[in-house]
Amino acid sequence: MAEYRAYVTDAPGGNVEYRSVQISDENGNVMLKPLLTGICGTDRGIARGALPFAYNPSGYNFLVVGHESMCKVIESKSDYFKPGDIVVPIVRRPGDCPNCLIGRPDNCSDGNKHEAGITGLHGFMREMFMEQDFNLIKIKDKELGDLGVLTEPMKNVVKAFEVIERVSTRSIYQNNLSTMEGKTALIVGTGCEAFLYSFLSVDYGFDTFISNRHPIGQTSLNMCKQFGVNFIDSSKEPDFPQKPLDLLIDTSGDPGTVLRYLRKMNYNGIVILFGTNGKAPSTELTGEDIDHIVERNITIAGSVDAAKIHYMKALDYLSKWNRMHGDIMKTIITAYFSPGETDVFTKKPDGEIKSVIKWQ
Amino acid sequence: MAEYRAYVTDAPGGNVEYRSVQISDENGNVMLKPLLTGICGTDRGIARGALPFAYNPSGYNFLVVGHESMCKVIESKSDYFKPGDIVVPIVRRPGDCPNCLIGRPDNCSDGNKHEAGITGLHGFMREMFMEQDFNLIKIKDKELGDLGVLTEPMKNVVKAFEVIERVSTRSIYQNNLSTMEGKTALIVGTGCEAFLYSFLSVDYGFDTFISNRHPIGQTSLNMCKQFGVNFIDSSKEPDFPQKPLDLLIDTSGDPGTVLRYLRKMNYNGIVILFGTNGKAPSTELTGEDIDHIVERNITIAGSVDAAKIHYMKALDYLSKWNRMHGDIMKTIITAYFSPGETDVFTKKPDGEIKSVIKWQ
Amino acid sequence: MAEYRAYVTDAPGGNVEYRSVQISDENGNVMLKPLLTGICGTDRGIARGALPFAYNPSGYNFLVVGHESMCKVIESKSDYFKPGDIVVPIVRRPGDCPNCLIGRPDNCSDGNKHEAGITGLHGFMREMFMEQDFNLIKIKDKELGDLGVLTEPMKNVVKAFEVIERVSTRSIYQNNLSTMEGKTALIVGTGCEAFLYSFLSVDYGFDTFISNRHPIGQTSLNMCKQFGVNFIDSSKEPDFPQKPLDLLIDTSGDPGTVLRYLRKMNYNGIVILFGTNGKAPSTELTGEDIDHIVERNITIAGSVDAAKIHYMKALDYLSKWNRMHGDIMKTIITAYFSPGETDVFTKKPDGEIKSVIKWQ
Amino acid sequence: MAEYRAYVTDAPGGNVEYRSVQISDENGNVMLKPLLTGICGTDRGIARGALPFAYNPSGYNFLVVGHESMCKVIESKSDYFKPGDIVVPIVRRPGDCPNCLIGRPDNCSDGNKHEAGITGLHGFMREMFMEQDFNLIKIKDKELGDLGVLTEPMKNVVKAFEVIERVSTRSIYQNNLSTMEGKTALIVGTGCEAFLYSFLSVDYGFDTFISNRHPIGQTSLNMCKQFGVNFIDSSKEPDFPQKPLDLLIDTSGDPGTVLRYLRKMNYNGIVILFGTNGKAPSTELTGEDIDHIVERNITIAGSVDAAKIHYMKALDYLSKWNRMHGDIMKTIITAYFSPGETDVFTKKPDGEIKSVIKWQ
Repeated sequence: MAEYRAYVTDAPGGNVEYRSVQISDENGNVMLKPLLTGICGTDRGIARGALPFAYNPSGYNFLVVGHESMCKVIESKSDYFKPGDIVVPIVRRPGDCPNCLIGRPDNCSDGNKHEAGITGLHGFMREMFMEQDFNLIKIKDKELGDLGVLTEPMKNVVKAFEVIERVSTRSIYQNNLSTMEGKTALIVGTGCEAFLYSFLSVDYGFDTFISNRHPIGQTSLNMCKQFGVNFIDSSKEPDFPQKPLDLLIDTSGDPGTVLRYLRKMNYNGIVILFGTNGKAPSTELTGEDIDHIVERNITIAGSVDAAKIHYMKALDYLSKWNRMHGDIMKTIITAYFSPGETDVFTKKPDGEIKSVIKWQ
Repeated sequence: MAEYRAYVTDAPGGNVEYRSVQISDENGNVMLKPLLTGICGTDRGIARGALPFAYNPSGYNFLVVGHESMCKVIESKSDYFKPGDIVVPIVRRPGDCPNCLIGRPDNCSDGNKHEAGITGLHGFMREMFMEQDFNLIKIKDKELGDLGVLTEPMKNVVKAFEVIERVSTRSIYQNNLSTMEGKTALIVGTGCEAFLYSFLSVDYGFDTFISNRHPIGQTSLNMCKQFGVNFIDSSKEPDFPQKPLDLLIDTSGDPGTVLRYLRKMNYNGIVILFGTNGKAPSTELTGEDIDHIVERNITIAGSVDAAKIHYMKALDYLSKWNRMHGDIMKTIITAYFSPGETDVFTKKPDGEIKSVIKWQ
Repeated sequence: MAEYRAYVTDAPGGNVEYRSVQISDENGNVMLKPLLTGICGTDRGIARGALPFAYNPSGYNFLVVGHESMCKVIESKSDYFKPGDIVVPIVRRPGDCPNCLIGRPDNCSDGNKHEAGITGLHGFMREMFMEQDFNLIKIKDKELGDLGVLTEPMKNVVKAFEVIERVSTRSIYQNNLSTMEGKTALIVGTGCEAFLYSFLSVDYGFDTFISNRHPIGQTSLNMCKQFGVNFIDSSKEPDFPQKPLDLLIDTSGDPGTVLRYLRKMNYNGIVILFGTNGKAPSTELTGEDIDHIVERNITIAGSVDAAKIHYMKALDYLSKWNRMHGDIMKTIITAYFSPGETDVFTKKPDGEIKSVIKWQ
Repeated sequence: MAEYRAYVTDAPGGNVEYRSVQISDENGNVMLKPLLTGICGTDRGIARGALPFAYNPSGYNFLVVGHESMCKVIESKSDYFKPGDIVVPIVRRPGDCPNCLIGRPDNCSDGNKHEAGITGLHGFMREMFMEQDFNLIKIKDKELGDLGVLTEPMKNVVKAFEVIERVSTRSIYQNNLSTMEGKTALIVGTGCEAFLYSFLSVDYGFDTFISNRHPIGQTSLNMCKQFGVNFIDSSKEPDFPQKPLDLLIDTSGDPGTVLRYLRKMNYNGIVILFGTNGKAPSTELTGEDIDHIVERNITIAGSVDAAKIHYMKALDYLSKWNRMHGDIMKTIITAYFSPGETDVFTKKPDGEIKSVIKWQ
């Protein structure tokens, strides 16, 4: 029976506090301590009791929160990991559907998976925990530094682009030179995930835009400039885009914004829905919207979570971008907090792209 | 300069009349006379001026309508066709985008294709016309009879299932036995296309339902029974479906109906939007709808038209179903009209599944 | 402990006899009696002790042979099956690799699967046996008759064409009209599998040839004619093919024949290796052969066995062909034997396409 | 009519000399001078007259050789390129088959493409030449330096892995965690292409081996060590591999070596044939080899050339590896020659990985 301090909630009731907990039944051959844990909209949703699907692990009246993390190996009975190794633990754990059985719980067919820090499994915001080695990704790039904590959000981006590659096989999506040159992508939102989506979009060769309905800070603008992403303040550019969009990725979950740009999609266009916001105001879906989707062979795909392969590729992309644009890339972490601070769960710091808790 | 009688409109103004026309610039090495031409929602949309995208061929102040047809070869300079052969002409003709260049104008990337009887190309409701041999599909099955006129609507169904096959590669869509057993499909609508969709859905192994918001006639019910399709009167079965849908195919174009069932989609569910009805009443798209699409990895795909390969496979399916359930299958053609009759363009006959004009 | 008569061997020693056996540990909720069981090269290989990979089930010093069968349900505790139903049992049973876990033991990643009548699992040539319902395919088409016994060989053909569809996605394989018109396929061999391959090849739209190095009988020639397949006696037509092959399917397992035609493959050509004959004479593989494969982006794919979905589609194709060409199709079964006769395991009857044992 | 010095041959007769040539009909909106041009087996094959498929451009009695190059823009009428830009020109130019029409001349369906420096199109080993902007890839990474000349060989590697991704969809190729961990790849050969293949193999997550039948130099061994590739001297390790291979990539074109390792392929294994050597000694292909391919669902795919998208991704990989292992990576260029030197076309320098001609 281990006792340590952790950020906990009684899911799905809301409220997050930092206190001592006892957790007794941890399976795992690797002991970990977190170095950094990131805070995202899901954590804040749990904190304000807005995620009815969250629940405590069986046998517990609390849930340790936190699913974005970068940890250090303290002890290891696994041949593959040594004390001192830096790792990222996987969030979602498989059930027994066909997708789970092949290592794709992100595509779980029946909902019988668990997610650390969210649904029935303790998360990573605690002084220490045990894990099975196969649930850990080793960070081999020593230069990556704190950016390793972005592996978890980045893995979602990698999976979404896998979805794009698969659904795009329904027609020839590339231009007549086999590339994406001349194709336009818009990423809606300017949070951490949105930026990661926009960077990968540039890598794929899209003319890439990122939008919000208000201006963004200088750090964000610098990042856009460095990576070749164009920022659109949609409140001031009602006519954007001038030419049809080939790819739309929404991180806002806002129906009105999604439909606004869905109406600008090109033939064979692909829309990725990633952001969720159940409380967002509704909007009108018209017969003409459906016409547009049909006549243009448009594909709209929800995309959630990702699998181990995507964590590994996420690290690859982060390393690459860090080596190319390290100074700017590092500014994506906009605030560091200490264990025990809880305000960050209820209040978004000004100019936040990514807030993290620094454990050591 | 050939002169013959034809059903014509001045697109997109509406009204269809049967009169003599002169058409001078027909390219083609095969001379055809229609045997049967089918009437669908698009024809009626043109007739009531509701399709703003319809337009006359260049150099003409009229458009011959009609895109569903089964024709007889009268003369042929093509080695592949002989007088007396029964053929179906392709509707959509390629532009020069990558998809058009590989024989997939159904997936046209820029809209620079043409459609016989709809957009800039004379259709098939005329006493005779010329065609290029590569635009013709030969009907080899002598037993198919009048059902050959369903090739054009059926080809859309075949293409949509190709889309399903492609987008479903984003995860394991089948059950753990590699089949569709235990998977549920709902086809919205009870017109000819809806029935064809439902038959193919049964062939794929789905538990298949077809729905409308009112009762359907005995002919339709018989057809359902014969093919193993279950009819749902949605006005009386508000709780349908009891278990989540794995496949939803909409032929209504009605936003309210689409969202009603979208909310019942299973994990990895696929929604095909096929029907269009720009004038349909709007409905509310909520934040929770978007959540549902995201969290369940749902894919929504518009699907329009089809390519030559789909016409060929369409004939294959029609032949198969005719051989299995010929007596019932033939009742899908619910009314025959004669050249010159125009009421059918403005008034849907009672109990219509498919109305056709019989030319000879 | 059930006792009944069966065709048994002591694998892999060779020899097949018909005698009483006791089998005690059958799991299954459906009791079956065979109506027809087919004999193929694998059965004869077992009979002459030429298949070193064959082995007895655990705890038995014998193996009931037979994997091609059509059976009648005698008793059933399964809701899905009723006494009198006609079914085909699946041959290969899953291990625990990723492919097996999703119902694709045909693609088993580690060899830990079993095959009824071949590797560690009793086969179907016995007076009765028990089966789990999920291992059975129901034959719904009452008109199919004895041709149902071809489901097992046909399922291999369906899977191989799935392989063709998958590997062909590496380039555009179709012509510029999206079809296979103008593409040439050669099936090497004139046994039952070869004919089934050739029929499906015609269905896919290939100009289809079937070859052997000697003449074939009138029954076979009639079948070719009916289905639109062209027979080539390769001993007399050294220059065949005149134009490059787009698809080559080998059912012979003969290296010399495979290479002879591999050298005639077109750009993006696909070669399916299906036949096996370990004792076939070797042939020279040259540097120029490898050049040819590389420079033309040729794909060579071994294909073995099939999954439940393929059994179901196999029945679909057999039904279709039976309805189209029933009289000729039925001649594919060239000889019927009675339980107890064993010569057919060691001697191929003259003009054999498919020999079967008729149990009732 | 431009006159400049160039490396020329009279294809396919053999011999390469450096002399003045006049070339009059160059289409292009960008004027280029080479910085570096690489020499590969194809160039040497042309020089010794061993490539019968090489031919002079129409209207010329000579062919400028050279297809691996990195060039500087001297003048530009294209908006996208400015003087001083560093670019790589594409080698293969499209015909009019479906693959060529969508920008995939690497998959040309009929052989009617051209290749600069090889088949009917002047190559890049000349003081200057004109190009169309759409045939040029811009090198944006200023740190890449001389390694940009590897873009052309690397693009072949990227395409081959695309082939692997496509053909592997015929089954689940990954392990039950969705990754390649525990999978083994062998690359046959230790030339420049072989190393590039091995680096990408490591990136994909394979345990990666590279083999030759003799020892390799210290530079090569250092590179292996740095990238995590294991070298096998096949003359000394007859029992390699201990466990079956999941991926085999041959850069040797040697039938004996290909078959040696083909016999060690795992279930669902993939073999990429890339190397060509028409003069290599033949080997015996046995019936058991074919059995092995069939029973294990093995796929063998020839892969030649690549498309524009692969050049772009090639640059991405080179940049990444240069940033990670720049010091070692740069040693892959083992020798620099000056314009006018011709011995390198006939004699491979000791310890060569990649030899280049430095033009400026």
